[in-house]
Amino acid sequence: MIKTAVLGFGTVGSGVVELIDRNRGPVERRVPEGIEVKYILDLRDFPDSPYRDRVVHDFNVILEDPEIRVICETMGGMEPAFTFSKKALEKGISVCTSNKELVAAHGPELLQTAQKNHCSYLFEASVGGGIPIIRPVTSSLAPENITRIIGILNGTTNYMMTRMEKENLSFDEVLRQAQERGYAEKNPEADIEGHDACRKIAILSSLMCGKNVRYEDVPCEGISRISMTDVAYARAMGCAIKLLGVSERSPEDGTFYVRTAPFMVPSSHPLHSVEDVFNAVFVHGNLVDDLMFYGRGAGKFPTASAVVSDLLECALQIGSTIPVRWTDEVMQLSDPAQKKGRFFVRVPAEHREKAAELFKGCASVSAPEAPTDETAFTTAPMTEAAFEAAVAELGEVRSRIRLLEA
Amino acid sequence: MIKTAVLGFGTVGSGVVELIDRNRGPVERRVPEGIEVKYILDLRDFPDSPYRDRVVHDFNVILEDPEIRVICETMGGMEPAFTFSKKALEKGISVCTSNKELVAAHGPELLQTAQKNHCSYLFEASVGGGIPIIRPVTSSLAPENITRIIGILNGTTNYMMTRMEKENLSFDEVLRQAQERGYAEKNPEADIEGHDACRKIAILSSLMCGKNVRYEDVPCEGISRISMTDVAYARAMGCAIKLLGVSERSPEDGTFYVRTAPFMVPSSHPLHSVEDVFNAVFVHGNLVDDLMFYGRGAGKFPTASAVVSDLLECALQIGSTIPVRWTDEVMQLSDPAQKKGRFFVRVPAEHREKAAELFKGCASVSAPEAPTDETAFTTAPMTEAAFEAAVAELGEVRSRIRLLEA
Repeated sequence: MIKTAVLGFGTVGSGVVELIDRNRGPVERRVPEGIEVKYILDLRDFPDSPYRDRVVHDFNVILEDPEIRVICETMGGMEPAFTFSKKALEKGISVCTSNKELVAAHGPELLQTAQKNHCSYLFEASVGGGIPIIRPVTSSLAPENITRIIGILNGTTNYMMTRMEKENLSFDEVLRQAQERGYAEKNPEADIEGHDACRKIAILSSLMCGKNVRYEDVPCEGISRISMTDVAYARAMGCAIKLLGVSERSPEDGTFYVRTAPFMVPSSHPLHSVEDVFNAVFVHGNLVDDLMFYGRGAGKFPTASAVVSDLLECALQIGSTIPVRWTDEVMQLSDPAQKKGRFFVRVPAEHREKAAELFKGCASVSAPEAPTDETAFTTAPMTEAAFEAAVAELGEVRSRIRLLEA
Repeated sequence: MIKTAVLGFGTVGSGVVELIDRNRGPVERRVPEGIEVKYILDLRDFPDSPYRDRVVHDFNVILEDPEIRVICETMGGMEPAFTFSKKALEKGISVCTSNKELVAAHGPELLQTAQKNHCSYLFEASVGGGIPIIRPVTSSLAPENITRIIGILNGTTNYMMTRMEKENLSFDEVLRQAQERGYAEKNPEADIEGHDACRKIAILSSLMCGKNVRYEDVPCEGISRISMTDVAYARAMGCAIKLLGVSERSPEDGTFYVRTAPFMVPSSHPLHSVEDVFNAVFVHGNLVDDLMFYGRGAGKFPTASAVVSDLLECALQIGSTIPVRWTDEVMQLSDPAQKKGRFFVRVPAEHREKAAELFKGCASVSAPEAPTDETAFTTAPMTEAAFEAAVAELGEVRSRIRLLEA
């Protein structure tokens, strides 16, 4: 029997413990000795839980038990998760985590600690919830030169954008709905301002290049400025507005462009039909071409499933390090101002002529529900810098949203 | 340097050799010693190939070279691929293959041989071409009770159905087009009659249950009877006709239902938007819920990428067996006649009333392009047996296509 400990008995942590019980059959087909959750670390007691006798409050009980060879860190946040993970790895105990904040901030250091101590640090659950994406990128796609990853990486915002589109509701209304259904937190900032998606695309970008893409270096824009009018235009254009994490490797010089922002996604793109709380990660490899991985990006059991998947891999490879290449060398990102793309823009009607002058080659677009006092268009491909300069000269735009090329 | 041999220098085999050269960077990031193709086994010589000096004609040269620890079998067909694979595994040489015929027919025996000899038999490229699906199912989803797999597993037929739908072309016209573009073989039977998709769903079903689902036991129907009229109705119903491999585990008794046939796929299903030569595999796990894996299901480099992915895994784990659970115990499939579902049916107009009697609760459907001398409807859920009995009593149906539930 492989003995494990679960750190943090919240949504994901309790999912891990319950999954190991409920899916004992599949678990033992993979690891015939079986898995036992020997400890659950939490500040709280759980007198009504069938697992109450496994709850401990002192991490050292776990650390000093030589039977524990793998732990599941489902606490979230930086501390004490970082200290606990580091101490475990230093003792040769593998760590499987769903903690994207910690992975985005300290991934390289924890991976290095694991390697030095012949154990593993795995984080399948940190991106895309239950979608297998970390292991496909690091292992299945190892022969590939991955040149592009585009992800719908946050279920809350994708749910909100889908409901705005389908039910013609305002941003505030769908946010309230999402909060009522438990899809959005009371303080929804990390989701709607894009910070969560930004951490996830930083993690994926780091795995693409093998160096450290710091999420602080990734330009990040959320969905809070998207209006019902923007959504109406998107619908009329055959697009859906999605919050995307985008990472591209330049084929010329190998530099990286990374961004989190809302994009107009055309119906010809596989990401267009990813709706509600589902997530998807689109990957382009130089030889395998286009791939997409789709599934539930959050939720108790999908996320727990990814944690247990890592746990089983660790259990199969005790005493060795499952290789994940992500060094602490900081990846210099290319100047986002020089990135070329097309934009959707809405301006007051009186700016129509000036806009046509400033945005050479723009194409006007219309939507049945659009206000009559404005004009909207898509630009020709131009750099972000040129776009911002034109916007500054125009003085006022009501909205601008990047277009994703099909 | 890890030395390998490639058996068969056809489309996929030459892709493997070229990929290892072209993507040396990514390959060496994963396996720092590097990979060298020491031998290429083929009956032919390739005097104009830069790899001509590696070509050998005698398999024993490879088998008796102690430097060779992994081989890539990209010959296709049963013999001599089976004998070569078996001999290699018996000597402790791992085998990575794209050969779905061989995997479907002898997977359990070759896996067992690998396990006995502390090497691996891997076959990522045998299903879904470049899509990572075998390793996600066996490894990433190991904690799951997978209850359903539905796959668009054949690019040729998906291309043909997409072109029939988009360009309003007949079956014969799109077949000719597919042959001209190299998407269909001169003798297209294995693709259009569903045999290729059938082998692939049998492989996936075997991995779902861990036992041997024999492809000979899977009811198999191709697309050659699909007409432009069927496609017109599908379009009017908001569906697309796709050749699917379907595998379901009964939640009650754990029995398996497996089938390959064309289905009407509603637009609400993620498989609906998978077009042209792309493949996709939809997977439902009891805890992770719905997942989908999408990408190029064939082609030189996508398939070679999957073979090399396996090769790198083997290179990282020389001397041990990468676990894949698929025993030779034959999985008894449930009686397909007892499977319940809904059907789309077209009958001559004069049978309208009799049909309404026989198919209680059917719903009529119409399409602008439909012939005036017929009537079409969808049935209520009924068993295949009840459906066939009603059809026999009716005497004549012009077409019947199963509906995939959303």
